[in-house]
Amino acid sequence: MKESLTGHVLEPIIRKALAEDIGPGDLTTSSILSGEERGEGRALAKSDLVLAGIDVFITAFRLLDPTAALREALVDGTAVRPGQTVAVVSGSLCALLSAERTALNFLQRMSGIATMTRQFVDAVKGTGTRILDTRKTVPGLRVLDKYAVRAGGGTNHRFALYDGVLIKENHVAAAGGIGSAVQRVRRRAPHTVRVEVEVRNLEELREALDAGADMVMLDNMDVEAMREAVLRAGGRIPLEASGNVSLANVRTIAGTGVDFISVGSLTHSVRAADISLLISPEPPPEG
Amino acid sequence: MKESLTGHVLEPIIRKALAEDIGPGDLTTSSILSGEERGEGRALAKSDLVLAGIDVFITAFRLLDPTAALREALVDGTAVRPGQTVAVVSGSLCALLSAERTALNFLQRMSGIATMTRQFVDAVKGTGTRILDTRKTVPGLRVLDKYAVRAGGGTNHRFALYDGVLIKENHVAAAGGIGSAVQRVRRRAPHTVRVEVEVRNLEELREALDAGADMVMLDNMDVEAMREAVLRAGGRIPLEASGNVSLANVRTIAGTGVDFISVGSLTHSVRAADISLLISPEPPPEG
Amino acid sequence: MKESLTGHVLEPIIRKALAEDIGPGDLTTSSILSGEERGEGRALAKSDLVLAGIDVFITAFRLLDPTAALREALVDGTAVRPGQTVAVVSGSLCALLSAERTALNFLQRMSGIATMTRQFVDAVKGTGTRILDTRKTVPGLRVLDKYAVRAGGGTNHRFALYDGVLIKENHVAAAGGIGSAVQRVRRRAPHTVRVEVEVRNLEELREALDAGADMVMLDNMDVEAMREAVLRAGGRIPLEASGNVSLANVRTIAGTGVDFISVGSLTHSVRAADISLLISPEPPPEG
Amino acid sequence: MKESLTGHVLEPIIRKALAEDIGPGDLTTSSILSGEERGEGRALAKSDLVLAGIDVFITAFRLLDPTAALREALVDGTAVRPGQTVAVVSGSLCALLSAERTALNFLQRMSGIATMTRQFVDAVKGTGTRILDTRKTVPGLRVLDKYAVRAGGGTNHRFALYDGVLIKENHVAAAGGIGSAVQRVRRRAPHTVRVEVEVRNLEELREALDAGADMVMLDNMDVEAMREAVLRAGGRIPLEASGNVSLANVRTIAGTGVDFISVGSLTHSVRAADISLLISPEPPPEG
Amino acid sequence: MKESLTGHVLEPIIRKALAEDIGPGDLTTSSILSGEERGEGRALAKSDLVLAGIDVFITAFRLLDPTAALREALVDGTAVRPGQTVAVVSGSLCALLSAERTALNFLQRMSGIATMTRQFVDAVKGTGTRILDTRKTVPGLRVLDKYAVRAGGGTNHRFALYDGVLIKENHVAAAGGIGSAVQRVRRRAPHTVRVEVEVRNLEELREALDAGADMVMLDNMDVEAMREAVLRAGGRIPLEASGNVSLANVRTIAGTGVDFISVGSLTHSVRAADISLLISPEPPPEG
Amino acid sequence: MKESLTGHVLEPIIRKALAEDIGPGDLTTSSILSGEERGEGRALAKSDLVLAGIDVFITAFRLLDPTAALREALVDGTAVRPGQTVAVVSGSLCALLSAERTALNFLQRMSGIATMTRQFVDAVKGTGTRILDTRKTVPGLRVLDKYAVRAGGGTNHRFALYDGVLIKENHVAAAGGIGSAVQRVRRRAPHTVRVEVEVRNLEELREALDAGADMVMLDNMDVEAMREAVLRAGGRIPLEASGNVSLANVRTIAGTGVDFISVGSLTHSVRAADISLLISPEPPPEG
Repeated sequence: MKESLTGHVLEPIIRKALAEDIGPGDLTTSSILSGEERGEGRALAKSDLVLAGIDVFITAFRLLDPTAALREALVDGTAVRPGQTVAVVSGSLCALLSAERTALNFLQRMSGIATMTRQFVDAVKGTGTRILDTRKTVPGLRVLDKYAVRAGGGTNHRFALYDGVLIKENHVAAAGGIGSAVQRVRRRAPHTVRVEVEVRNLEELREALDAGADMVMLDNMDVEAMREAVLRAGGRIPLEASGNVSLANVRTIAGTGVDFISVGSLTHSVRAADISLLISPEPPPEG
Repeated sequence: MKESLTGHVLEPIIRKALAEDIGPGDLTTSSILSGEERGEGRALAKSDLVLAGIDVFITAFRLLDPTAALREALVDGTAVRPGQTVAVVSGSLCALLSAERTALNFLQRMSGIATMTRQFVDAVKGTGTRILDTRKTVPGLRVLDKYAVRAGGGTNHRFALYDGVLIKENHVAAAGGIGSAVQRVRRRAPHTVRVEVEVRNLEELREALDAGADMVMLDNMDVEAMREAVLRAGGRIPLEASGNVSLANVRTIAGTGVDFISVGSLTHSVRAADISLLISPEPPPEG
Repeated sequence: MKESLTGHVLEPIIRKALAEDIGPGDLTTSSILSGEERGEGRALAKSDLVLAGIDVFITAFRLLDPTAALREALVDGTAVRPGQTVAVVSGSLCALLSAERTALNFLQRMSGIATMTRQFVDAVKGTGTRILDTRKTVPGLRVLDKYAVRAGGGTNHRFALYDGVLIKENHVAAAGGIGSAVQRVRRRAPHTVRVEVEVRNLEELREALDAGADMVMLDNMDVEAMREAVLRAGGRIPLEASGNVSLANVRTIAGTGVDFISVGSLTHSVRAADISLLISPEPPPEG
Repeated sequence: MKESLTGHVLEPIIRKALAEDIGPGDLTTSSILSGEERGEGRALAKSDLVLAGIDVFITAFRLLDPTAALREALVDGTAVRPGQTVAVVSGSLCALLSAERTALNFLQRMSGIATMTRQFVDAVKGTGTRILDTRKTVPGLRVLDKYAVRAGGGTNHRFALYDGVLIKENHVAAAGGIGSAVQRVRRRAPHTVRVEVEVRNLEELREALDAGADMVMLDNMDVEAMREAVLRAGGRIPLEASGNVSLANVRTIAGTGVDFISVGSLTHSVRAADISLLISPEPPPEG
Repeated sequence: MKESLTGHVLEPIIRKALAEDIGPGDLTTSSILSGEERGEGRALAKSDLVLAGIDVFITAFRLLDPTAALREALVDGTAVRPGQTVAVVSGSLCALLSAERTALNFLQRMSGIATMTRQFVDAVKGTGTRILDTRKTVPGLRVLDKYAVRAGGGTNHRFALYDGVLIKENHVAAAGGIGSAVQRVRRRAPHTVRVEVEVRNLEELREALDAGADMVMLDNMDVEAMREAVLRAGGRIPLEASGNVSLANVRTIAGTGVDFISVGSLTHSVRAADISLLISPEPPPEG
Repeated sequence: MKESLTGHVLEPIIRKALAEDIGPGDLTTSSILSGEERGEGRALAKSDLVLAGIDVFITAFRLLDPTAALREALVDGTAVRPGQTVAVVSGSLCALLSAERTALNFLQRMSGIATMTRQFVDAVKGTGTRILDTRKTVPGLRVLDKYAVRAGGGTNHRFALYDGVLIKENHVAAAGGIGSAVQRVRRRAPHTVRVEVEVRNLEELREALDAGADMVMLDNMDVEAMREAVLRAGGRIPLEASGNVSLANVRTIAGTGVDFISVGSLTHSVRAADISLLISPEPPPEG
């Protein structure tokens, strides 16, 4: 995956994480080291994983030591086997020791997300259905969580409440109907965002189609109903399946012909990828 | 659990989360609602869980609508059954709809942590061993992650690099030995923090004891070695077991007599508790 | 216009503006007043204008004095005649004097934007064409600038680079063609945002239509070409006219049948509405 | 104009503007470009203007791409003809495309201010009267607005409420007279700032002179009264004319002999200078 | 002293101080108290002092507990004897215990400044000379340091580099003479600030007078030279004595007839006033 | 002292201090200098002092001018005689002049702390007792104040309320006894922090020892009582003497055999070290 996260997005997040962990100072490291030592850190995969977050990983070290640098690294999105080196970073030994936990906390979470996303993506391979994330991300890290989903081959749903419209039951009730809700949104929201409507049954689907919705989310429908919904939509607008999706049922759902399946657990129930950092001091330069 | 998180810690975190999700505005809600509607949100458990994060949950709504208030709520640390109401919040319907996802993202993660912690705590019940968390938390949310561990009955390890000392292999190497490392730390760090040393075998344990360590972490030792370590420490200082702890092996480890067992997965591999929010509009006041 | 800007968006912007103007203290007011005086401020229109920014106006005073309150106010979007009172605020006289300039700076700019927008909207009345804003806003105030456009009856284009796609000439060149550019975007961007393509002639329009663009921006085309473009698009997707739009030519452009006309000057060349604040002290309460 | 704005003032403002426009990411550019492409942007004047803001312009690009650099640039304060190149910037093509709008929003506003200021300055050329700005600036950008006034040849009035004293009608009423107001200020405010008094007629002017004001602002007086005021002040203290100043009447006002004329519209009703950025990719280096 | 510091200036400073001291939590208090207890804190002077900082003191508690309130308090500027109560605050016992140190750190420093200032002011009583502070304040607290000087009866010099001009030796050298330096400043700086020139001898004083300086600082001159300087200035502009001022020599310096004497030690070498807080729990309300 | 303060801790503090002093601009320097001049600043001790803060000093200049650099410097902790050069910095003359005051404000305070600390440390030399600081630091600068104490040879007490436990009278009362207070803390606080109990007499000391306190603070005890306390503690836990410590009595207190003596005045009543900066322009490079 060639795409990279630019510094102006990453740095404030990582700076805050370092401040949380180091605060007024790393008591152990600053007591023992002189600050002059150099070292190398080798990040090793200890289980199968899909890598995500190398930019974040190296930035954590660089913010403590501007001379820190990657000596080698796999690219995000790579499937990695246990025992493989995913990155080697060199720099001040103090920086390596003090930023280790922060760098790994990011890398392990992001790779955990990419790994699970890849499993869902593989499960629907060949069906044409795409795997979507949700807004069920960790507060403050959404930009990283959603990047990791892309690294795993998934597709991003709207980023937030401001870049997409999703009309839910309460909105419909307040507007007095799906048609009126869609109308109100079209009047106020930028025409650059699509209007999606959440429906719970085929009757609501019909209303949404009549109202001119740009997309429909089928919320917690059973497979039969979804199949019927696909027929009725007839390809005019994309359909998204949502609710209780797991690796066990995702392919069946894809088989209904829906265009998208959104999976909250990609980001709300992340299993950290197992990666450890082997740090070793470098011999001081001769002379 | 009577302890509560004070506002000055919570509010900046939650404000940032709301800004991430709402940004310049919730397109759907602000297009459809007038802003005058009032509503009620009922948070329902949909699986077994241990509750944590009620203060965070209500604060998310209050930051959008100062009149938002809890009508009822269980206290953090309560074991909850599927179908039970954990909290009812009333307030502006706009605020309920716009903060729903943020409030749940916090509550589900925190309750997920408390739930898993309780499982580990129950697994070692009666042994006298205590379950510790680690610094493997989500960047930016450590204060919440560690609170949730306490809500689940766990015990906090040091919060960060500044409030405890943990001498690891690289520190020992830089200092030229465990004894010298401990000495350097005692000279520089406040005497109010304990000095813990990470050891990988019984030989290193002996060095740590000789060096006057206040605590020792047994890193990835097997059960036999841990048992022997407990004998050799003889109760003089507390021992902490660390590495590859799971619900399957935690009681066995506790059986060795170690004082603490630290479990990274409590916070690095959280499974969000299943909680949903049923929002309903309130009829406008009569007259 | 019933819609209001919520506090979590406004307050940081206004706080920063007050800090810019008051800094360590208002030398004049704090030297002369005791802090106990109460007063009233009457905001008077001194020319024809469309009002926008009442929430911002009152918040500026409330951030210095939480007891400051609106006694009366017109709603945003109201057309106001010279001499009309648009708002009356009461509060601490110190707060009125110290926040006066900040409150007016916002209110005059926002009303200036609403006023000019209304002129453009009126100019195309009956044609079905809608007036759009652009990203040519004042850095840091976009959320207010775009709100004011809506208050004037205009329609918002995308808010920023993250909530809409606009493929321009350089993007096309980098991708090797409009078709390939559209494809790349569809693979990476959320499906919740529409893909708009900027074209300079009818040949590019054809490519954009073939590529399945969701919208097309006609960049600096002459009226004849726009009319032909409307024919060729045949209502399949919306067309936006852009470039050198003025009150003099906007109705002619609307006559071509385009769906939207975007007008940069709505926000990049704002003429502040003429509003002044008459402040008067209140007699102290008796007794 | 040799004076430059230092980075510690500019960078936080520009960073915030970039965050406003790019947020979690530029969807179009990051979808289409690889991040490796280099490019060049040529800023071209499309109308007569006085340039201001080159430092801000280049910094916008540099904050996204530290290697971005000016290849050529005119200096601020230069009068520019349509068709002239005002600056050429080279750097990452992604950075050029993503920061283009932000960079231009600043440059066009600042040049717009400088251009109008120059017109006023030219209009009073030879009279000895100087053109002043006011605090009617855009919230958050005052430091840039006032810099642009200087670039156009204008003179800055006080920056804010903290670096100058201006006693207005309400202050006088609260103090019980101009004399008492001046006294109170002299007791509390640093002696490093001058005390200016706003007067509406010759009687108040006399009181201000008697009170020992350091300067007087003649508020909305007619030309006859201003002429008489100049006679009465007799050069002892500077006089400032204020209120309803336009290019049509500014020379007449200057003819009364006042020292300063303050013009709110310099910053509250800015007409963006017409500047566009022609971006072109660079061929990749050979080899 | 009736003047008060407004919240928008105080709160960010105090919030930061509380965050520094409490961080993720007050371990002692949150472990032991339930959060329900109420208490009272009595601030007692333990030595002679001039009070300053009551607003800051109470705000520290209020930011942790919005219900915290002053039951009684002396006003800033009051001379207090040992054993006197300066303030009584009631509120949550947790808040009292957790904010105690922060509240006292501010109150003791500010009262220390006011106390020393009062000593200098008293030492020159009757001479007409005023005591000035300097920019030698503690980074981040200048607004409080300078407020405390006023509470002690002193006068503020310029707040910072932006609200006054002081031409020093290096500036003179760069400009090629005092006259040219003054001229350059008059061209660029707002006319609302005075131009002060630092001189080291009578020759430089003459140059400054010729250049039309608004004020002169006599830097480290001996008493004879200062007396002569006063004669030569002849009351045309104010003179400020600076350098090595102490309680021992301040009256002698005042005797030379200088208008101002600036004293760096007022803020750079503060002796904290001795104030302690007696905290007592309140019996819970009956029933 | 080889230890250094890392940039991520220093920079935000110094940036804030520069913003406080420079704000929108240094009027004097920016009016007179062109920005091209280079210069050198020589920091000279003018009295006996112990140096602390060289990193902070140079960073202040570097944040205004990235090319600023130390040409020579003594290391923190060095005892310096009057007339000695402590550092030479070269860089832009504007940066030297604009940051001078900020750089010195830090350096003089920090060196003042180190100097006084060294006096206390020397006074107890040979007794084995260590000198501790307290939380009586200047709000916002604790990390620097405590660093300076170390530079002077002192030892840090806990940094804040979050990295150590100190049970005081009010906590004991709330818990119903010292034993119960200690127990509650052990249950809630991380085991990595020590539990210290403040006692006022020998009876309370006994309770603290029985409760298993890790340390005891003897609060305002007389020398006889302290001597007896040392006997009773018998070396089992460290004892800290606190209250009314001065250079006059510190050695007598150390003679009682206490392990630590804490001294509030080290940081709450700092006497700025006398250091001045001689700035000189550099001749422009030839050619």
